[in-house]
Amino acid sequence: MLSSLFNPKNVAVIGASSKELSIGNRIIKNLVEFGFKGGIFPINPKAPEIRGVKAYKSILDLPPNGGIDVVHLVIPAKFSPMAFEDCGKMKVKNIIINSGGFSETGPEGEEIEKTCMEIARKYGIRVFGPNCQGIINTDPESRAYCNFTFTVPETGYVSLVSLSGGVAEMIHQEFTEMQVGTRLFASNGNAIDVTIPEIIEYMGEDKGTRVIVTYVEGLRDARRFLEVAKTVAARKPILAMKAGRTKEGAKAAASHTGGLAKEDIFTDLIFKKAGVLSFTDEGELIRAAAAFSTQPIPKGNRVGIITNTGGPAVISTDVMIKGGLELPPLSEKTKETLKQTLLPEASVRNPVDLLATATGAHFRSALDALMDDDNFDSIMIHFVTPFFVDNVNIAREIADVSRKQIKPIICNLMTDKSRTEEVVAILKDGGVPCFNLPSDAGHAMNSMVAYQNMRSRKTGSVKIFKDVGKDKARQILLKAKTAGHENLSAEEVHGILEAYNIPVARCAVAPTADEAVKTAANIGYPVVVKAESREIIHKSDAGGVALGLHTESAVRKAIERMQSRIHAKDLRFFVQQFQGSGLEVIMGAKAEDGLGHMLMFGLGGIYVEILKDVTFELAPLSDVEASEMIGGIKGSPLLTGVRGQPGVDVPALQNVLRRLSQLVTDLPEIKEMDLNPIIAYEDRVCVVDARINI
Amino acid sequence: MLSSLFNPKNVAVIGASSKELSIGNRIIKNLVEFGFKGGIFPINPKAPEIRGVKAYKSILDLPPNGGIDVVHLVIPAKFSPMAFEDCGKMKVKNIIINSGGFSETGPEGEEIEKTCMEIARKYGIRVFGPNCQGIINTDPESRAYCNFTFTVPETGYVSLVSLSGGVAEMIHQEFTEMQVGTRLFASNGNAIDVTIPEIIEYMGEDKGTRVIVTYVEGLRDARRFLEVAKTVAARKPILAMKAGRTKEGAKAAASHTGGLAKEDIFTDLIFKKAGVLSFTDEGELIRAAAAFSTQPIPKGNRVGIITNTGGPAVISTDVMIKGGLELPPLSEKTKETLKQTLLPEASVRNPVDLLATATGAHFRSALDALMDDDNFDSIMIHFVTPFFVDNVNIAREIADVSRKQIKPIICNLMTDKSRTEEVVAILKDGGVPCFNLPSDAGHAMNSMVAYQNMRSRKTGSVKIFKDVGKDKARQILLKAKTAGHENLSAEEVHGILEAYNIPVARCAVAPTADEAVKTAANIGYPVVVKAESREIIHKSDAGGVALGLHTESAVRKAIERMQSRIHAKDLRFFVQQFQGSGLEVIMGAKAEDGLGHMLMFGLGGIYVEILKDVTFELAPLSDVEASEMIGGIKGSPLLTGVRGQPGVDVPALQNVLRRLSQLVTDLPEIKEMDLNPIIAYEDRVCVVDARINI
Repeated sequence: MLSSLFNPKNVAVIGASSKELSIGNRIIKNLVEFGFKGGIFPINPKAPEIRGVKAYKSILDLPPNGGIDVVHLVIPAKFSPMAFEDCGKMKVKNIIINSGGFSETGPEGEEIEKTCMEIARKYGIRVFGPNCQGIINTDPESRAYCNFTFTVPETGYVSLVSLSGGVAEMIHQEFTEMQVGTRLFASNGNAIDVTIPEIIEYMGEDKGTRVIVTYVEGLRDARRFLEVAKTVAARKPILAMKAGRTKEGAKAAASHTGGLAKEDIFTDLIFKKAGVLSFTDEGELIRAAAAFSTQPIPKGNRVGIITNTGGPAVISTDVMIKGGLELPPLSEKTKETLKQTLLPEASVRNPVDLLATATGAHFRSALDALMDDDNFDSIMIHFVTPFFVDNVNIAREIADVSRKQIKPIICNLMTDKSRTEEVVAILKDGGVPCFNLPSDAGHAMNSMVAYQNMRSRKTGSVKIFKDVGKDKARQILLKAKTAGHENLSAEEVHGILEAYNIPVARCAVAPTADEAVKTAANIGYPVVVKAESREIIHKSDAGGVALGLHTESAVRKAIERMQSRIHAKDLRFFVQQFQGSGLEVIMGAKAEDGLGHMLMFGLGGIYVEILKDVTFELAPLSDVEASEMIGGIKGSPLLTGVRGQPGVDVPALQNVLRRLSQLVTDLPEIKEMDLNPIIAYEDRVCVVDARINI
Repeated sequence: MLSSLFNPKNVAVIGASSKELSIGNRIIKNLVEFGFKGGIFPINPKAPEIRGVKAYKSILDLPPNGGIDVVHLVIPAKFSPMAFEDCGKMKVKNIIINSGGFSETGPEGEEIEKTCMEIARKYGIRVFGPNCQGIINTDPESRAYCNFTFTVPETGYVSLVSLSGGVAEMIHQEFTEMQVGTRLFASNGNAIDVTIPEIIEYMGEDKGTRVIVTYVEGLRDARRFLEVAKTVAARKPILAMKAGRTKEGAKAAASHTGGLAKEDIFTDLIFKKAGVLSFTDEGELIRAAAAFSTQPIPKGNRVGIITNTGGPAVISTDVMIKGGLELPPLSEKTKETLKQTLLPEASVRNPVDLLATATGAHFRSALDALMDDDNFDSIMIHFVTPFFVDNVNIAREIADVSRKQIKPIICNLMTDKSRTEEVVAILKDGGVPCFNLPSDAGHAMNSMVAYQNMRSRKTGSVKIFKDVGKDKARQILLKAKTAGHENLSAEEVHGILEAYNIPVARCAVAPTADEAVKTAANIGYPVVVKAESREIIHKSDAGGVALGLHTESAVRKAIERMQSRIHAKDLRFFVQQFQGSGLEVIMGAKAEDGLGHMLMFGLGGIYVEILKDVTFELAPLSDVEASEMIGGIKGSPLLTGVRGQPGVDVPALQNVLRRLSQLVTDLPEIKEMDLNPIIAYEDRVCVVDARINI
């Protein structure tokens, strides 16, 4: 674990400098001014002290077994290996390489990185960075500001991790501006050793961390991220933002990280599967974190609004309703109570409008009533501070109720902060998350409910079908692979589908017209005949497809026509049972680097091509996920039946989708696989065409 | 015009009070402390002075012809009529009724409101409110704080108007917090006389106003709003937010305004037609206003980014690309220049990454180059303030370039404001809009470009078809109306469509089977026969529809069947040419209170029912709007041709849509009208069924 990194006994800075505007000086300054509880050891060959702290000529001059848990390296990259050796000798546990000049600059820097890592492994040193800002731990027992940035955080409950120093710092500043306290901060730049998943795991264990915030431009180790995030997110919220979502954004990201941003859908699926809350707006993320950091998680989506001004409640209502939240009516008991306690003109419904003249007692009475009312899981307050009431008293009542931590409270505080400092301070002290704008408050509430929904959602279980011929399918694949084929033949594809008990239209391959006629009789008319040859790619363009053949002579004629058009040596004829008209759907699977396959489901034809009405999920699919994928398309009423139409066999579709999931999970060699189309009928489904690419 | 309201020579307050926490005291305080340039006249029967200002027993005691342009009424509603009489005698020009107790409380208050308006009309007094905050004018020549709120605005260029005082105040506070200056502020509560359109018109004329912000929960006088906003928005941006968009939000709005929020689509169409920028997030609106208030409008959508940190540029790139903006490459000349002037490791592309160590000179050189580069219409800056560079100098260079007002600049300033006050002040002084977060900056840029796009868009012209029988159609309508019919018969509907040269399937009504057979022969087989009677509403449910009849005997059999099933006295038979299969589309029109008809277009069947793939527009339609409506549906590739299919006759569809627009505009009695379905073919379109409700 990273305990010695985030809670170092002593910190040394190799490259500590007397020059005020240098990083080697700034780190000493930050450690001193933030009140680091451990020892600070500037290493500088010349200066006797840095910022009033005794300096040493070399790290080797420090007392042996001095418990140097963290060493900052602020020296040119080429000197790093030497410093690593020295650190190893001194039993240093972690090295934060703040300097750049490593892999981000090219092969030479990459070589130095490798050398450093070899030395680190030899001595058991963990490496943070290089090309990074470092860490901060605001724990009063530690106060470790091992970082050269300029944000001075308050002690709090939000922990923040990001490769990108610029974004980490930007988010951190906003927390500071909003007076939201930080617990741990970690920005690890090139991240050659200590990774984001490892840091998230640590933050998950850290008792002082209530919410974890992360920013990514791509996921380097998707599988590890998924595993860690899943475990942690079950205990505390992880809020993530993935940028580089547009082609241009990804390019901008690539140009400053040297990496290529991963496809979006993929990251989103990982976030979803892990239970990570995904944000596309950093402001929403920051404000949600503020809410999570001091308020309990709501048990459900039912919000009660208390306001002393009308319009802002309307705005937040719009935001929350669009976010899937509910605004139930007040219980009869609450109504009775509030009719007694509020101003006579007050609006005793949800939103409860106390009126601008409401006092602290009115606020308190409404808060108590809604806290006690089982109709509500959380409370949104809109609080404007008119000059003619005692706003300090109102703030005290809100803060007092918030401290009980019964149901979450989020407050839209509308005030001139420079004139109501006491109000602001009281609410902050009571842990009431305050936002200037009603939409911002609404989105923060939506995020809290989204986390609860995510945490409590039924994810189902991945059921393994026993009636599959995994070995048989693997053999077909291996044979194709050995033969150097990338695209499997129709025969091979059918063999694999049959092995997994996926219903396919009956078929067989015939070398001649005579054989084809026999086969057709066997399968039963009407049939389809398709030319089969490795030389032709687009069968219909080559005139290699004949549909709806009802008779022997039709089959013979079709084959004659194909023979006259297609002069391939390996020409054979694929005879398949002709399917009547039904609803066309498609399924697909695509291998993703390092994390199995992404599955796709949609309606066929123009629905997928024009309306892009498709859903995605990561394999292996649980029963719930399969059902959600099929029910998740906009056109799903077509599946369940619409305008008196009967609908199709949805359970059979789920069955095929789950078998496909098992198939690609069993056979990771499959790069891409399509079942297109699958014809769905009222009582069955049938794959008509399929493609496998290895 | 409202000049005397916003620039009053003298202001009297009837109901001025010595009690500090009263509105009648607060207004005097605000006028005094804000430095009102005119005379202040507290009216109070007892106090000799209020807040050090000489008070008068009655308004009648003031010098005659004293130029009292504005009187505040802060007295109980029931005393208002008397005060109105007094004001009339004193030739008061405007009365701001701050007090409540009028129509918002019920019929009694409504009566008082009416009485007041009668007196006001008699004396030519304009009334602002009641139940409102009032106005503010920050013009140094006026400094009129005729308002009891507590926000102290800086002088600036944003003008703000809203019925809702709570939202107006909330927005105003946020401007103040962001140090964005206000020009005019107006919150007019019940708005019984001076309306929002009138105020927007005034703000449009006001030279000191560069951008107008408005918040609405419904549009009371939609036609006037549209007219005014259209004129004003061509000159300066109007930024609007409509709340109460969800059913629950509308209910919350209704409960505090007493009015019912209008349907959303309708408001959005008015905003679009007027060229008003519509927002659903007040934060985005506020930040856009900040940008408009000091920066020129961009000439196009091409943005150049300059940054001294990587990640935030990625985030804003995502936001702007999603907003339809472009990030073109640097011109060769710019590249050449920047390779000379920037740090060697700087990234000379778009985004230009100057690196954290960049100086003011580097920023200046990049800014100058991009201002000079014809590839760009605007510049986005990401500026983090590292401790090791001279940030004040960087700020000076940015401010200096901003002052030239060549192309708009928007800045994402990432700093600890409490420690970089000088940087913040310099940028503000240079009119550089600064936002804490890259997404916020990106959205502000999107809004500026959206305004430019809106202002420069081709709206086309409404062409009037001459070949229509308006009088004939009107006669059919009148006849139905006189007969007391709400739903027109098929015959009547066909008559009206034919009068407007809208292609309908050939048809006629026959009283008997014999006549029907003759008619069918006339029209040409195959035909459709439908039972026609005022007694049946759902024809197909009643067994009153027979499709695809190819022969005389088929027609006779169908009619026999209908006669045996339907026993209506007025039963007749509607015989119509049977249309072959084509693409089904639908069009509709719906009358909206006070502003003509809303038109609808979509693909038929499941596309409209399940996928809700429809577009709307207000009649009368210009050619461009008709084309946009048809091209705007997601399924539009089905119209233009897809997968080798030929597509349908789109110009013919546009023609029908424009004729429909003219028809409902000519005949405002039509409440609702549907053409459903219209069958579209490759070379023509044909209305098969239609419905008109008056």
